Amino acid sequence: MGVAVTLPESEQTANAKHSASGASAQEGAEAALHELSTYLAEDMAACNRAIVARMDSPVALIPQLAAHLVAAGGKRLRPLLTLASARLCGYPAGPDHQRHVALAACVEFIHTATLLHDDVVDESQLRRGLASANAVFGNKASVLVGDFLFARSFQLMTDDGSLKVMAILSSASATIAEGEVLQMSTQNDLSTSVDQYLTVIHGKTAALFAAACRVGAVVAKRPEVEEVALEAFGTNLGMAFQLVDDALDYAADQAVLGKTVGDDFREGKITLPVLAAYAAGSEEDRRFWRRVIEDSEQQPEDLDHALVLIARTDAIGATLDRAAIYARAACEALDIFPDTRLRRLLQDTASYTVSRAR
Amino acid sequence: MGVAVTLPESEQTANAKHSASGASAQEGAEAALHELSTYLAEDMAACNRAIVARMDSPVALIPQLAAHLVAAGGKRLRPLLTLASARLCGYPAGPDHQRHVALAACVEFIHTATLLHDDVVDESQLRRGLASANAVFGNKASVLVGDFLFARSFQLMTDDGSLKVMAILSSASATIAEGEVLQMSTQNDLSTSVDQYLTVIHGKTAALFAAACRVGAVVAKRPEVEEVALEAFGTNLGMAFQLVDDALDYAADQAVLGKTVGDDFREGKITLPVLAAYAAGSEEDRRFWRRVIEDSEQQPEDLDHALVLIARTDAIGATLDRAAIYARAACEALDIFPDTRLRRLLQDTASYTVSRAR
Repeated sequence: MGVAVTLPESEQTANAKHSASGASAQEGAEAALHELSTYLAEDMAACNRAIVARMDSPVALIPQLAAHLVAAGGKRLRPLLTLASARLCGYPAGPDHQRHVALAACVEFIHTATLLHDDVVDESQLRRGLASANAVFGNKASVLVGDFLFARSFQLMTDDGSLKVMAILSSASATIAEGEVLQMSTQNDLSTSVDQYLTVIHGKTAALFAAACRVGAVVAKRPEVEEVALEAFGTNLGMAFQLVDDALDYAADQAVLGKTVGDDFREGKITLPVLAAYAAGSEEDRRFWRRVIEDSEQQPEDLDHALVLIARTDAIGATLDRAAIYARAACEALDIFPDTRLRRLLQDTASYTVSRAR
Repeated sequence: MGVAVTLPESEQTANAKHSASGASAQEGAEAALHELSTYLAEDMAACNRAIVARMDSPVALIPQLAAHLVAAGGKRLRPLLTLASARLCGYPAGPDHQRHVALAACVEFIHTATLLHDDVVDESQLRRGLASANAVFGNKASVLVGDFLFARSFQLMTDDGSLKVMAILSSASATIAEGEVLQMSTQNDLSTSVDQYLTVIHGKTAALFAAACRVGAVVAKRPEVEEVALEAFGTNLGMAFQLVDDALDYAADQAVLGKTVGDDFREGKITLPVLAAYAAGSEEDRRFWRRVIEDSEQQPEDLDHALVLIARTDAIGATLDRAAIYARAACEALDIFPDTRLRRLLQDTASYTVSRAR
């Protein structure tokens, strides 16, 4: 395991500028992703067709639950990364070159399986603003259909036939599971270090972002330096993405976020906003955090008080500053590629990932 | 999907002889498995070492939970099948020929992952006579460590490097998940057909038995006819094994079975003993089955009454007769191999799988 991206303290304190006001940054983030999707519209359409085709099964409940997930949509960010990476590496167009499409679907299956199991573990009622699969179909169906999607993702890899791709994606799958277990182990534990937190988010999020990107370089048969560059882009983007997600859980309203605000708080999940507020808090603040997070003794008004403490200690700002460092590292990783429109779209996506939360 | 082993009705009614009295047959079954394990003792020791080594992780909870499973033991029947199949196909001995060991560990990981998720889905408190992992570590840990073991199994396949092996095992994994989902869909539903039930047990049990055996032939690089024969052995053995397991849930006492008797009954699981007793029952009997299985309205004394009805309709006999047909087909599948001690041990294992329940 081990996070390849831990930064020296000197870099971590480099205070990233707050880039824009909330509304326009939010629009900027959506616009960057939208432009990337539009640029790769044909590939994305093929990927969506592959997802629907390969989610099918004679066991009716599987496509039914799958349809619920497809309807819930989501940004399909991870498959988009595979498609974009392949194109950035010059993977040719045409019907004989569709490996990136099947592997993008494979990446989305791994992600969807993880989401299904996450929602069971977290007992979430909402996912992307809609009722979660476990809320509609029950925990059992979510566990078993998640297993089916994992198995199907490995069939997609096997069909692709590249041992290199299989090594990347099977290793990422193991790292994801390790990250999820570690997250569970740190739950309710305020003595969790920032490094442990970073290892968790590397596992649960950055590892698959990295694999999704690297696989794109592999299918294009590019030199290893480009594989490594795209893997670094994915890792750093994933770290930034998860830090922002964890910040938004204490900042955004439900409509914007598509999940219940305060979920992490109610579950006693250890995220950087909590660690930062706890570290910077008074003794009275710390007593509050221990009661609500470690002892899970929460009153209805506690979330509001937590938000006050987080604002007072600028814990969101500290979280987003760290996210900005990762986003910048993601952008820089792509500098070895020619300065094309696609490269700029990927770099904008990284930059706006952070600014959407400012 | 589709079960490759559905038999014509004429064969199904061929009434297998009840072979021996309970005690000696039980001993015979254990003796056959024990002999097979002893014959392959060196391979099994290497497989156990591989299992322990590859269950390791820097995330402490993973080896902790894994140690609980290893301590719980179990017969390691599936890895034994991979090892035995490889040897039956003449896979050479020596340090350069250890592919069968790694793949046997891989098969056990897939099985263990399935067990962990099964126990969550079934809310089981016991597994092989010990507290189940979910009872000790919680559902969350069982879901996530199961995911880790699935991912690790795919890493083991990737390390092996044979696309043929990967296709066999990834396809089996998908079939297992489909079987589990179908089983969930038929739960509490007495209109489930015998064919649907057979499809369920093919998916949840026979598919991995079949893959475990076929993989052994593949590493030995034998002609396809031997792969197919071993796959047929595994499929039929798996069907017999699950039918007997389902019979024992209404027959054995807890000490012998290593699980809570009446588990299937309490969960409203549709198995052949219930389908047979329902089909052969009076209108009053059927009202009873609908209340306890379909409406899940169970009183403490209902299990005893269910056992009376099952005895009266000889539903266990009907289940074991069907198991005996599969066991015989398993034995016959191996007839293309020379008549060696190993072949006889495998055939004895198949025969005694059924007689242990008589």
